[in-house]
Amino acid sequence: MEFQLEQATDILSRTPATMNSLLRGVAGEWTVCNEGPDTWSPYDILGHLIHAEKTDWIPRARIILEHGEAKPFEPFDRYAQLEISKGKSAAELMEEFESSRKKSLAALEEMKITSDKLTRRGTHPALGKVTLSELLATWVAHDLSHVVQVSRVMCRQYSEAVGPWREYLPILKHEQ
Amino acid sequence: MEFQLEQATDILSRTPATMNSLLRGVAGEWTVCNEGPDTWSPYDILGHLIHAEKTDWIPRARIILEHGEAKPFEPFDRYAQLEISKGKSAAELMEEFESSRKKSLAALEEMKITSDKLTRRGTHPALGKVTLSELLATWVAHDLSHVVQVSRVMCRQYSEAVGPWREYLPILKHEQ
Repeated sequence: MEFQLEQATDILSRTPATMNSLLRGVAGEWTVCNEGPDTWSPYDILGHLIHAEKTDWIPRARIILEHGEAKPFEPFDRYAQLEISKGKSAAELMEEFESSRKKSLAALEEMKITSDKLTRRGTHPALGKVTLSELLATWVAHDLSHVVQVSRVMCRQYSEAVGPWREYLPILKHEQ
Repeated sequence: MEFQLEQATDILSRTPATMNSLLRGVAGEWTVCNEGPDTWSPYDILGHLIHAEKTDWIPRARIILEHGEAKPFEPFDRYAQLEISKGKSAAELMEEFESSRKKSLAALEEMKITSDKLTRRGTHPALGKVTLSELLATWVAHDLSHVVQVSRVMCRQYSEAVGPWREYLPILKHEQ
Protein backbone atom coordinates (compact mmCIF):
# COMPACT_ATOMS: atom_id res chain seq x y z
CA MET A 1 0.00 0.00 0.00
CA GLU A 2 1.18 3.54 -0.75
CA PHE A 3 1.99 5.72 2.25
CA GLN A 4 -0.71 8.35 2.88
CA LEU A 5 -0.11 10.90 5.62
CA GLU A 6 -3.74 11.22 6.70
CA GLN A 7 -4.19 7.44 7.02
CA ALA A 8 -0.86 7.08 8.81
CA THR A 9 -1.77 9.81 11.32
CA ASP A 10 -5.13 8.16 11.91
CA ILE A 11 -3.51 4.79 12.69
CA LEU A 12 -0.90 6.39 14.96
CA SER A 13 -3.64 8.15 16.92
CA ARG A 14 -5.29 4.79 17.66
CA THR A 15 -2.42 2.90 19.27
CA PRO A 16 -2.78 4.24 22.85
CA ALA A 17 -6.46 3.16 22.84
CA THR A 18 -5.50 -0.26 21.49
CA MET A 19 -2.89 -0.72 24.23
CA ASN A 20 -5.44 0.45 26.80
CA SER A 21 -8.09 -1.99 25.67
CA LEU A 22 -5.59 -4.85 25.72
CA LEU A 23 -3.90 -3.98 29.00
CA ARG A 24 -5.46 -1.35 31.24
CA GLY A 25 -6.60 -2.96 34.46
CA VAL A 26 -5.72 -6.55 33.53
CA ALA A 27 -4.32 -8.72 36.31
CA GLY A 28 -0.68 -7.74 36.86
CA GLU A 29 0.77 -11.05 35.72
CA TRP A 30 -0.51 -10.34 32.19
CA THR A 31 1.51 -7.13 31.91
CA VAL A 32 4.79 -8.68 33.09
CA CYS A 33 4.56 -12.02 31.28
CA ASN A 34 6.88 -12.63 28.34
CA GLU A 35 7.91 -15.27 25.81
CA GLY A 36 10.97 -16.58 27.66
CA PRO A 37 14.47 -15.34 28.53
CA ASP A 38 15.48 -12.07 26.84
CA THR A 39 12.00 -11.40 25.45
CA TRP A 40 9.79 -8.42 26.25
CA SER A 41 6.64 -8.20 28.34
CA PRO A 42 3.77 -5.81 27.55
CA TYR A 43 5.25 -3.61 30.32
CA ASP A 44 8.65 -3.54 28.55
CA ILE A 45 6.97 -2.75 25.22
CA LEU A 46 5.11 0.26 26.69
CA GLY A 47 8.43 1.67 27.94
CA HIS A 48 9.98 1.10 24.52
CA LEU A 49 7.12 2.92 22.78
CA ILE A 50 7.48 5.90 25.15
CA HIS A 51 11.22 6.07 24.53
CA ALA A 52 10.69 5.97 20.75
CA GLU A 53 8.12 8.75 21.07
CA LYS A 54 10.64 10.95 22.86
CA THR A 55 13.82 10.24 20.92
CA ASP A 56 12.98 8.67 17.57
CA TRP A 57 10.05 9.70 15.38
CA ILE A 58 9.51 13.44 15.83
CA PRO A 59 13.17 14.27 16.60
CA ARG A 60 14.22 12.46 13.41
CA ALA A 61 11.49 14.11 11.34
CA ARG A 62 12.81 17.47 12.59
CA ILE A 63 16.39 16.56 11.62
CA ILE A 64 15.23 15.67 8.10
CA LEU A 65 13.27 18.92 7.68
CA GLU A 66 15.90 21.16 9.26
CA HIS A 67 19.18 19.55 8.23
CA GLY A 68 18.39 17.13 5.40
CA GLU A 69 21.08 14.55 4.78
CA ALA A 70 23.81 16.65 6.43
CA LYS A 71 23.10 15.60 10.02
CA PRO A 72 22.75 11.85 10.72
CA PHE A 73 20.10 10.79 13.27
CA GLU A 74 21.15 9.87 16.79
CA PRO A 75 21.25 6.07 17.10
CA PHE A 76 18.11 4.73 18.84
CA ASP A 77 18.63 2.79 22.08
CA ARG A 78 16.33 -0.22 21.89
CA TYR A 79 16.86 -1.06 25.56
CA ALA A 80 16.45 2.37 27.14
CA GLN A 81 13.04 1.44 28.54
CA LEU A 82 14.71 -0.71 31.18
CA GLU A 83 15.85 2.54 32.82
CA ILE A 84 12.91 4.73 31.78
CA SER A 85 10.25 2.47 33.26
CA LYS A 86 11.88 1.98 36.65
CA GLY A 87 9.42 2.43 39.49
CA LYS A 88 6.45 3.11 37.21
CA SER A 89 3.25 1.05 37.08
CA ALA A 90 1.87 -0.27 33.80
CA ALA A 91 -1.02 2.20 34.18
CA GLU A 92 1.47 5.07 34.50
CA LEU A 93 3.29 3.91 31.38
CA MET A 94 0.00 3.77 29.45
CA GLU A 95 -0.81 7.34 30.47
CA GLU A 96 2.69 8.48 29.56
CA PHE A 97 2.47 6.80 26.17
CA GLU A 98 -0.93 8.37 25.51
CA SER A 99 0.25 11.89 26.38
CA SER A 100 3.57 11.47 24.52
CA ARG A 101 1.70 10.32 21.42
CA LYS A 102 -0.67 13.30 21.60
CA LYS A 103 2.31 15.66 21.75
CA SER A 104 3.98 13.87 18.83
CA LEU A 105 0.88 14.14 16.66
CA ALA A 106 0.51 17.81 17.51
CA ALA A 107 4.17 18.35 16.58
CA LEU A 108 3.61 16.44 13.33
CA GLU A 109 0.66 18.66 12.47
CA GLU A 110 2.74 21.78 13.13
CA MET A 111 5.27 20.57 10.58
CA LYS A 112 2.62 21.07 7.86
CA ILE A 113 3.94 18.19 5.88
CA THR A 114 3.26 18.41 2.16
CA SER A 115 3.83 15.73 -0.46
CA ASP A 116 6.97 17.64 -1.37
CA LYS A 117 8.32 17.44 2.18
CA LEU A 118 7.60 13.70 2.29
CA THR A 119 10.30 13.08 -0.31
CA ARG A 120 13.01 14.93 1.67
CA ARG A 121 15.95 12.82 2.69
CA GLY A 122 17.86 12.27 5.91
CA THR A 123 20.75 10.06 6.96
CA HIS A 124 20.20 7.06 9.18
CA PRO A 125 23.38 6.16 11.11
CA ALA A 126 23.27 2.53 9.90
CA LEU A 127 20.76 2.37 7.02
CA GLY A 128 21.99 5.40 5.07
CA LYS A 129 19.65 7.58 3.01
CA VAL A 130 15.99 7.50 4.00
CA THR A 131 13.02 9.74 3.24
CA LEU A 132 10.57 11.45 5.61
CA SER A 133 7.82 9.30 4.11
CA GLU A 134 9.77 6.13 4.97
CA LEU A 135 10.33 7.38 8.53
CA LEU A 136 6.61 8.01 9.03
CA ALA A 137 5.62 4.68 7.46
CA THR A 138 8.08 2.98 9.82
CA TRP A 139 6.45 4.73 12.77
CA VAL A 140 3.09 3.17 11.78
CA ALA A 141 4.54 -0.28 11.09
CA HIS A 142 6.50 -0.13 14.37
CA ASP A 143 3.30 0.62 16.31
CA LEU A 144 1.43 -2.24 14.68
CA SER A 145 4.35 -4.65 15.14
CA HIS A 146 4.18 -3.96 18.89
CA VAL A 147 0.41 -4.50 18.96
CA VAL A 148 1.21 -7.85 17.33
CA GLN A 149 3.84 -8.51 19.99
CA VAL A 150 1.67 -7.58 23.00
CA SER A 151 -1.22 -9.75 21.83
CA ARG A 152 1.12 -12.62 20.88
CA VAL A 153 2.87 -12.54 24.28
CA MET A 154 -0.53 -12.63 26.01
CA CYS A 155 -1.84 -15.37 23.71
CA ARG A 156 1.14 -17.63 24.43
CA GLN A 157 0.49 -17.56 28.17
CA TYR A 158 -2.26 -20.11 27.49
CA SER A 159 -0.07 -22.46 25.44
CA GLU A 160 -0.61 -25.22 27.97
CA ALA A 161 -4.07 -24.23 29.21
CA VAL A 162 -5.68 -24.85 25.80
CA GLY A 163 -4.80 -28.57 25.94
CA PRO A 164 -5.41 -30.43 22.65
CA TRP A 165 -6.52 -27.22 20.85
CA ARG A 166 -2.83 -26.26 20.70
CA GLU A 167 -2.87 -28.27 17.47
CA TYR A 168 -5.17 -25.67 15.87
CA LEU A 169 -3.29 -22.59 17.10
CA PRO A 170 0.09 -22.53 15.34
CA ILE A 171 0.91 -19.24 17.09
CA LEU A 172 1.23 -21.22 20.33
CA LYS A 173 3.84 -23.48 18.79
CA HIS A 174 6.07 -20.50 17.93
CA GLU A 175 5.52 -21.34 14.28
CA GLN A 176 4.38 -17.87 13.34
CA MET B 1 0.05 -19.55 33.00
CA GLU B 2 -2.77 -21.37 34.76
CA PHE B 3 -6.28 -20.77 33.43
CA GLN B 4 -8.31 -18.48 35.73
CA LEU B 5 -11.95 -17.88 34.87
CA GLU B 6 -12.08 -14.29 36.10
CA GLN B 7 -8.98 -13.28 34.13
CA ALA B 8 -10.20 -15.12 31.04
CA THR B 9 -13.59 -13.38 31.18
CA ASP B 10 -11.87 -10.03 31.60
CA ILE B 11 -9.71 -10.58 28.50
CA LEU B 12 -12.70 -11.80 26.46
CA SER B 13 -14.66 -8.68 27.40
CA ARG B 14 -11.88 -6.48 25.96
CA THR B 15 -11.63 -7.84 22.42
CA PRO B 16 -14.48 -5.83 20.84
CA ALA B 17 -12.87 -2.60 22.12
CA THR B 18 -9.49 -3.69 20.78
CA MET B 19 -10.97 -4.40 17.36
CA ASN B 20 -12.76 -1.06 17.47
CA SER B 21 -9.63 0.89 18.30
CA LEU B 22 -7.72 -0.84 15.52
CA LEU B 23 -10.41 -0.67 12.87
CA ARG B 24 -13.47 1.49 13.48
CA GLY B 25 -13.52 4.32 10.99
CA VAL B 26 -10.18 3.54 9.31
CA ALA B 27 -10.00 4.07 5.56
CA GLY B 28 -11.80 1.17 3.85
CA GLU B 29 -8.69 -0.23 2.20
CA TRP B 30 -7.26 -1.07 5.64
CA THR B 31 -10.22 -3.32 6.48
CA VAL B 32 -10.12 -5.29 3.23
CA CYS B 33 -6.34 -5.64 2.85
CA ASN B 34 -4.79 -9.05 3.40
CA GLU B 35 -1.47 -10.93 3.25
CA GLY B 36 -1.88 -12.38 -0.24
CA PRO B 37 -4.02 -15.02 -1.96
CA ASP B 38 -6.12 -17.15 0.40
CA THR B 39 -5.34 -15.03 3.46
CA TRP B 40 -7.82 -13.12 5.58
CA SER B 41 -8.48 -9.39 5.82
CA PRO B 42 -9.57 -7.68 9.07
CA TYR B 43 -13.10 -7.76 7.56
CA ASP B 44 -12.90 -11.55 7.11
CA ILE B 45 -11.59 -11.96 10.66
CA LEU B 46 -14.52 -10.01 12.14
CA GLY B 47 -16.95 -12.33 10.35
CA HIS B 48 -15.05 -15.36 11.62
CA LEU B 49 -15.17 -14.07 15.22
CA ILE B 50 -18.95 -13.51 14.96
CA HIS B 51 -19.49 -17.00 13.59
CA ALA B 52 -17.41 -18.52 16.42
CA GLU B 53 -19.43 -16.53 18.94
CA LYS B 54 -22.66 -17.99 17.58
CA THR B 55 -21.68 -21.59 16.95
CA ASP B 56 -18.52 -22.44 18.87
CA TRP B 57 -17.74 -21.24 22.39
CA ILE B 58 -21.01 -21.00 24.30
CA PRO B 59 -22.80 -23.79 22.37
CA ARG B 60 -19.85 -26.13 23.09
CA ALA B 61 -19.70 -25.11 26.76
CA ARG B 62 -23.42 -25.99 26.99
CA ILE B 63 -22.82 -29.39 25.39
CA ILE B 64 -20.08 -30.14 27.94
CA LEU B 65 -22.24 -29.12 30.90
CA GLU B 66 -25.43 -30.79 29.65
CA HIS B 67 -24.15 -33.90 27.89
CA GLY B 68 -20.53 -34.40 28.96
CA GLU B 69 -18.55 -36.70 26.70
CA ALA B 70 -21.66 -38.39 25.27
CA LYS B 71 -22.45 -35.78 22.61
CA PRO B 72 -19.58 -34.65 20.35
CA PHE B 73 -19.49 -30.96 19.37
CA GLU B 74 -20.67 -29.90 15.93
CA PRO B 75 -17.63 -29.33 13.68
CA PHE B 76 -16.77 -25.62 13.36
CA ASP B 77 -16.88 -24.14 9.87
CA ARG B 78 -13.81 -21.91 9.56
CA TYR B 79 -15.04 -20.36 6.33
CA ALA B 80 -18.65 -19.60 7.25
CA GLN B 81 -17.93 -15.87 7.49
CA LEU B 82 -17.75 -15.66 3.72
CA GLU B 83 -21.52 -16.16 3.71
CA ILE B 84 -22.31 -14.48 7.04
CA SER B 85 -20.64 -11.18 6.18
CA LYS B 86 -22.24 -10.76 2.77
CA GLY B 87 -23.58 -7.24 2.28
CA LYS B 88 -22.45 -6.00 5.70
CA SER B 89 -20.06 -3.12 6.31
CA ALA B 90 -17.03 -3.50 8.59
CA ALA B 91 -18.77 -1.17 11.07
CA GLU B 92 -21.83 -3.45 11.10
CA LEU B 93 -19.61 -6.49 11.73
CA MET B 94 -17.92 -4.69 14.63
CA GLU B 95 -21.29 -3.91 16.20
CA GLU B 96 -22.47 -7.47 15.67
CA PHE B 97 -19.29 -8.86 17.24
CA GLU B 98 -19.65 -6.53 20.22
CA SER B 99 -23.28 -7.49 20.87
CA SER B 100 -22.62 -11.21 20.28
CA ARG B 101 -19.73 -11.12 22.75
CA LYS B 102 -21.89 -9.39 25.37
CA LYS B 103 -24.52 -12.12 24.99
CA SER B 104 -21.87 -14.83 25.23
CA LEU B 105 -20.42 -13.38 28.42
CA ALA B 106 -23.90 -13.06 29.94
CA ALA B 107 -24.55 -16.71 29.03
CA LEU B 108 -21.20 -17.70 30.56
CA GLU B 109 -22.09 -15.93 33.79
CA GLU B 110 -25.45 -17.71 33.93
CA MET B 111 -23.62 -21.05 33.77
CA LYS B 112 -22.20 -20.28 37.23
CA ILE B 113 -19.00 -22.08 36.45
CA THR B 114 -17.21 -23.47 39.49
CA SER B 115 -13.72 -24.97 39.61
CA ASP B 116 -15.45 -28.35 39.65
CA LYS B 117 -17.32 -27.60 36.41
CA LEU B 118 -14.08 -26.47 34.75
CA THR B 119 -12.76 -30.03 34.85
CA ARG B 120 -15.82 -31.53 33.10
CA ARG B 121 -15.10 -33.21 29.81
CA GLY B 122 -16.60 -33.07 26.35
CA THR B 123 -15.82 -34.71 23.02
CA HIS B 124 -14.28 -32.70 20.19
CA PRO B 125 -15.09 -34.29 16.79
CA ALA B 126 -11.39 -34.36 15.80
CA LEU B 127 -9.34 -33.73 18.95
CA GLY B 128 -11.15 -36.15 21.27
CA LYS B 129 -11.53 -35.52 24.99
CA VAL B 130 -11.26 -31.90 26.11
CA THR B 131 -12.22 -30.07 29.30
CA LEU B 132 -14.40 -26.99 29.79
CA SER B 133 -11.31 -25.17 31.09
CA GLU B 134 -9.45 -25.99 27.86
CA LEU B 135 -12.38 -24.75 25.77
CA LEU B 136 -12.48 -21.42 27.62
CA ALA B 137 -8.69 -20.99 27.48
CA THR B 138 -8.90 -21.63 23.72
CA TRP B 139 -11.56 -18.93 23.42
CA VAL B 140 -9.12 -16.42 24.97
CA ALA B 141 -6.13 -17.58 22.92
CA HIS B 142 -8.27 -17.55 19.76
CA ASP B 143 -9.28 -13.92 20.41
CA LEU B 144 -5.69 -12.83 20.98
CA SER B 145 -4.44 -14.76 17.95
CA HIS B 146 -6.86 -12.76 15.80
CA VAL B 147 -5.75 -9.48 17.36
CA VAL B 148 -2.24 -10.59 16.34
CA GLN B 149 -3.53 -11.34 12.85
CA VAL B 150 -5.41 -8.06 12.33
CA SER B 151 -2.44 -5.96 13.46
CA ARG B 152 0.01 -8.08 11.45
CA VAL B 153 -2.08 -7.79 8.27
CA MET B 154 -2.24 -4.01 8.72
CA CYS B 155 1.48 -3.76 9.54
CA ARG B 156 2.46 -5.62 6.39
CA GLN B 157 0.66 -3.12 4.16
CA TYR B 158 3.66 -0.85 4.69
CA SER B 159 6.27 -3.49 3.77
CA GLU B 160 7.42 -1.36 0.85
CA ALA B 161 6.60 2.09 2.25
CA VAL B 162 9.15 1.73 5.10
CA GLY B 163 12.04 1.54 2.62
CA PRO B 164 15.38 0.56 4.21
CA TRP B 165 13.78 0.17 7.68
CA ARG B 166 12.37 -3.13 6.45
CA GLU B 167 15.69 -4.54 7.65
CA TYR B 168 14.73 -3.78 11.26
CA LEU B 169 11.16 -5.09 11.08
CA PRO B 170 11.36 -8.86 10.63
CA ILE B 171 7.55 -9.05 10.72
CA LEU B 172 7.55 -7.38 7.28
CA LYS B 173 9.73 -10.12 5.87
CA HIS B 174 7.23 -12.82 6.88
CA GLU B 175 9.90 -14.16 9.25
CA GLN B 176 7.64 -14.15 12.29
